[in-house]
Amino acid sequence: MKTGRLEAFSDGVLAIVITIMVLEMKVPEGSSFEALKPIIPKFLSYLLSFIYLGIFWNNHHHLFQAIEKINGKVLWANLALLFSLSLTPFTTAWMGENNFEKYPVMLYGANLLLSAIIFAVLENTAVKHEGKNSVLGQALKNTAKEKLTIIVYLVALIATYFLPLLGIIGYTIVAIIWLIPDSRIEKQLK
Amino acid sequence: MKTGRLEAFSDGVLAIVITIMVLEMKVPEGSSFEALKPIIPKFLSYLLSFIYLGIFWNNHHHLFQAIEKINGKVLWANLALLFSLSLTPFTTAWMGENNFEKYPVMLYGANLLLSAIIFAVLENTAVKHEGKNSVLGQALKNTAKEKLTIIVYLVALIATYFLPLLGIIGYTIVAIIWLIPDSRIEKQLK
Amino acid sequence: MKTGRLEAFSDGVLAIVITIMVLEMKVPEGSSFEALKPIIPKFLSYLLSFIYLGIFWNNHHHLFQAIEKINGKVLWANLALLFSLSLTPFTTAWMGENNFEKYPVMLYGANLLLSAIIFAVLENTAVKHEGKNSVLGQALKNTAKEKLTIIVYLVALIATYFLPLLGIIGYTIVAIIWLIPDSRIEKQLK
Amino acid sequence: MKTGRLEAFSDGVLAIVITIMVLEMKVPEGSSFEALKPIIPKFLSYLLSFIYLGIFWNNHHHLFQAIEKINGKVLWANLALLFSLSLTPFTTAWMGENNFEKYPVMLYGANLLLSAIIFAVLENTAVKHEGKNSVLGQALKNTAKEKLTIIVYLVALIATYFLPLLGIIGYTIVAIIWLIPDSRIEKQLK
Repeated sequence: MKTGRLEAFSDGVLAIVITIMVLEMKVPEGSSFEALKPIIPKFLSYLLSFIYLGIFWNNHHHLFQAIEKINGKVLWANLALLFSLSLTPFTTAWMGENNFEKYPVMLYGANLLLSAIIFAVLENTAVKHEGKNSVLGQALKNTAKEKLTIIVYLVALIATYFLPLLGIIGYTIVAIIWLIPDSRIEKQLK
Repeated sequence: MKTGRLEAFSDGVLAIVITIMVLEMKVPEGSSFEALKPIIPKFLSYLLSFIYLGIFWNNHHHLFQAIEKINGKVLWANLALLFSLSLTPFTTAWMGENNFEKYPVMLYGANLLLSAIIFAVLENTAVKHEGKNSVLGQALKNTAKEKLTIIVYLVALIATYFLPLLGIIGYTIVAIIWLIPDSRIEKQLK
Repeated sequence: MKTGRLEAFSDGVLAIVITIMVLEMKVPEGSSFEALKPIIPKFLSYLLSFIYLGIFWNNHHHLFQAIEKINGKVLWANLALLFSLSLTPFTTAWMGENNFEKYPVMLYGANLLLSAIIFAVLENTAVKHEGKNSVLGQALKNTAKEKLTIIVYLVALIATYFLPLLGIIGYTIVAIIWLIPDSRIEKQLK
Repeated sequence: MKTGRLEAFSDGVLAIVITIMVLEMKVPEGSSFEALKPIIPKFLSYLLSFIYLGIFWNNHHHLFQAIEKINGKVLWANLALLFSLSLTPFTTAWMGENNFEKYPVMLYGANLLLSAIIFAVLENTAVKHEGKNSVLGQALKNTAKEKLTIIVYLVALIATYFLPLLGIIGYTIVAIIWLIPDSRIEKQLK
């Protein structure tokens, strides 16, 4: 099984997920700039989620550049990732509507954590299928970045219970770690 | 007529269908975890439909790997399949909003059954166009899996009238049958 | 300028237009089959529009198989077609919500007519760019089908004013004319 | 990193952004043509935004025809462009619902201005990556068109404060400037 349609389908789902979030920013009544004020937290959570989904798309893109063939397990790990990411518009909207309160920020973090874990599982499944000596296997020998991500998310999740701002800071740290496209795969491809 | 754009268009429709279902999970009022409770049946029906649509996409992907050229009949059978699948967000939402009650579970099953029948028709139409000795014709000589699917759906549909849980169990059995990507076409392609 | 991305973009827009119409079928309150009754006219107009958009996608697909290069005029004619088709979810929903009353059926027909005219303009623009002796120019030497379509839509539009059913019959006649994929281009490609 | 999936993902996002705007045209109550009257300003702002997004898609298409490889910076500049464009359905709806009043027209213009600035940044980032002597570098040696665009938007934005009509005229002038696909890249590709 080749990867072409799986990539096209994933691109489609991610493009929709990243875009329909804007539908949650309901048009306010009134035509003054004041009327836009309640939209601000929704706008900020949209921006945050856009960046995370951009990172996931980016990582997905890199990962599948090194994958040549897929099997049923890779396919379902990929669908699980898409499912977890498709929940983002919901968790984003709940966080935005409740102005970054404790529980919504925790659910948002749990969603990010779930997506990060499934992405690590997807990488692992792909490495097993391609073999440890494949380009992918060599590129992903070191998974410290994935482990660090999951740990930071876990810590941020717990910290949110005490102070939501700590959660947002934790999530932002992970975003910064991943903002620069992953060079492991590019190096190996060369 | 080649299959490229038909696959791209189908991927687009399926990606949208699988994603807009999340829009039915309306953001609840209140920021406590309690507020999420009424969302749970909607979440479960979304998860179920995501898996079914994943299976259909997977089967579609496999089927079109073995199809080389299409005619008007294949094209319209494919559009009929997309139409039936595009009703899934509606039947899913009705089932989720009514907490898996009898009639919504029956309509949901009828939608799955309709999609399964149209998929069998699509396979048949494609085999007729490609010829019985083609790769596709050889791969789909045995359609026991399709027939079993339709029978289980029918039984589950009737059982739902007496106990909705039986319907859900029936639908789940079909999902398990198809969860492993269909090997008939892959074997034949080799 | 090549046609690859224009086709991909058009596929994306058409896939979304054909799918978001289902969002207009709001989930009814109540879990009995009775509760579904008010949905029936919306379902029928969705089905009708799905078929029309399927036909337009199909014709678009055929047209661009014979187009090798595009210029700015072809590009804008194509965008105008996408705009007109993107209004279909609106006109479909208005017709469905008003149970096929006079004015909504007229607006729906006007939308179909507009799309048919722009499609004829797109064909004409493409023929001018490719040249009369090109594959496309030869295939579209006879545009009787396009002219007939526009005339039937016009007659149906006027007839709707007196009896909406006549409009629906007229639109259905055009659908039947186009249901079989256009063979002019396929013949010429051979 | 090749550009294939970045183009496909951008096409997906732009196709969704350009299409979901139609969802803001809520179906009116009543079945007379009178009932459509309040929709007219929403329809006009939809038409305007469709043209702008068509122009952006067109420019994006041209730009990436001359780009052969991308790096992380190009990728994030592109995501920033998609983010800015994804806000268009919101700003369009606010302008349409408030019948082209002062502040909504200003926000709409600010959104266009932001998108134009990010597009210029994207061009610049791509030129830096490809090199000044590359096809792209030569094609974009003269960026007078980009500078003029930004100046006209700025002037129109300020003028809107005094008379919203002036803003709409300014935005329309920019649309006319860009309506003809950019020939700089095409010339250079030859």
